[in-house]
Amino acid sequence: MIDVPTLVEQARQGRPRAVARLISLVENAAPELREVMAALAPYTGRAYTVGLTGSPGVGKSTSTSALVSAYRRLGKRVGVLAVDPSSPFSGGALLGDRVRMQDHATDPEVFIRSMATRGHLGGLSWAAPQALRVLDAAGCDVILVETVGVGQSEVEIAARADTTVVLLAPGMGDGIQAAKAGILEIGDVFVVNKADRDGADATARELNHMLGLGEARGAGDWRPPIVKTVAARGEGVDEVVEALEKHRAWLDEHGELAVRRRRRAADEVEAIALAALRARIGDLHGDRHLATLAEQVVAGGLDPYGAADRLVAGLTGR
Amino acid sequence: MIDVPTLVEQARQGRPRAVARLISLVENAAPELREVMAALAPYTGRAYTVGLTGSPGVGKSTSTSALVSAYRRLGKRVGVLAVDPSSPFSGGALLGDRVRMQDHATDPEVFIRSMATRGHLGGLSWAAPQALRVLDAAGCDVILVETVGVGQSEVEIAARADTTVVLLAPGMGDGIQAAKAGILEIGDVFVVNKADRDGADATARELNHMLGLGEARGAGDWRPPIVKTVAARGEGVDEVVEALEKHRAWLDEHGELAVRRRRRAADEVEAIALAALRARIGDLHGDRHLATLAEQVVAGGLDPYGAADRLVAGLTGR
Repeated sequence: MIDVPTLVEQARQGRPRAVARLISLVENAAPELREVMAALAPYTGRAYTVGLTGSPGVGKSTSTSALVSAYRRLGKRVGVLAVDPSSPFSGGALLGDRVRMQDHATDPEVFIRSMATRGHLGGLSWAAPQALRVLDAAGCDVILVETVGVGQSEVEIAARADTTVVLLAPGMGDGIQAAKAGILEIGDVFVVNKADRDGADATARELNHMLGLGEARGAGDWRPPIVKTVAARGEGVDEVVEALEKHRAWLDEHGELAVRRRRRAADEVEAIALAALRARIGDLHGDRHLATLAEQVVAGGLDPYGAADRLVAGLTGR
Repeated sequence: MIDVPTLVEQARQGRPRAVARLISLVENAAPELREVMAALAPYTGRAYTVGLTGSPGVGKSTSTSALVSAYRRLGKRVGVLAVDPSSPFSGGALLGDRVRMQDHATDPEVFIRSMATRGHLGGLSWAAPQALRVLDAAGCDVILVETVGVGQSEVEIAARADTTVVLLAPGMGDGIQAAKAGILEIGDVFVVNKADRDGADATARELNHMLGLGEARGAGDWRPPIVKTVAARGEGVDEVVEALEKHRAWLDEHGELAVRRRRRAADEVEAIALAALRARIGDLHGDRHLATLAEQVVAGGLDPYGAADRLVAGLTGR
């Protein structure tokens, strides 16, 4: 029997074990999940969330770790949610280079959590925001959401933050790869990491060009800054924090923070509703029915839409 | 007014314009979509589908193009579905290096189509399989599904093929990046492309090690081969085709082809059912209701699960 009210109270006091326990309940979609979320609701909405995304190899882990250090110097309580892609079949997270985070492992004001991106479409879409709520209620001033991949779902997660940081590095195929991954549009702040390498200036210039930063914008529009860093040595990281704070102030001033948060909440509610409906499809029909329908589709006797109709029919009575 | 039966008949005869038209209907979720799918159903299930995935820069487009040439030499009709990631906001596909495919543009026995991976979770999961059905009914012997990204949804698409090819290249962070992307488990055939570069042997060895290919397996188990290629010069590509044909024979022999196809159809039916339910949530409540609920969630007065309950309630009457 899990004592949710006590657990939530301890998490609010920032006790790491309670925070970890609550996130595990979220990840495992435990029966207590609803009770946990209801209990957390009044204490959420305070944390500033920053999403970090970029191609593999640009130094996301190193940058995240450096940002944690920078925020700690400012006396902030920091949460880190590292969203790791995983096999669609195993469900396990690969924490290869999480090692760097060990720097902060003994700091009681830093909460670090890795999360696997499950095998099911939409799986992540409910789990990550719920974990954010736990960190939020635990009094984190800033939560960094680092996504390892640059796939659709990873990018969506990063884009749902209050501020989204897109990382690049020289000589990685640069801008065109970033553009292909669809991550240029979502960046509020751009970071060219490994700026001590050849080509850093060229990458920044190319990025500047692709973003059309030279073009005229409306007076109130946000112009995404491009910051050069060498995260491994901490260089430029304070400038990134400065850019983040500026963006946060801009969001506040223009009412954009509320807009983004409402959009995020709406996505979250819709994802949970769909997951619930999905579960009901399973409950109603059992795997046998779906398997039978699938067999008919493979045999060409039924098209997938006709099969879907039959699957849904029992659920809604229509 | 679109004459679906005529369009389907023309597509079956392999007329490119009809094929393109049908895929567009699928992509745009046109009102005729259901009619199209019902009309195609009896003519599907013949094509052998091959998924290709791997990190950006390993040479997926070049490899796909080389495979098209190889299959054409065998007299096969070939379909190519290139799944391109796109901005979650624009929905447009970036076709940067699709240029190589121009080699096959005038070949009437080759159908090439690029597809954007939409902004919505689950969006792709219904569109790509439906496009496959069109190419299948159009008499393609082989359909190559190339995914540009290595994100969750892209990997899922590639993994749903009859045979999944995972591409690597030397000096790209190699195995560990592939492992992080969760693509090692889904490979039926591995290709180390750019094998004329330094480190190709090391990459193959590392891959061999990570796959545990040295370990004992059951007698009937499939041992994923590792093929070295220089796709830009066509080297090793016939060996890839040979490996694919071997895997196909193995699938057939062990009844695995039917298993995979039933699983794929079940995923497809479930995705369509969920999309339908999602649309009904919108129909029933309108965006206003969701927006109001989201506002309450942001304010902390309601937790996302409670909000989701209210959203679903009107739909199922429970």
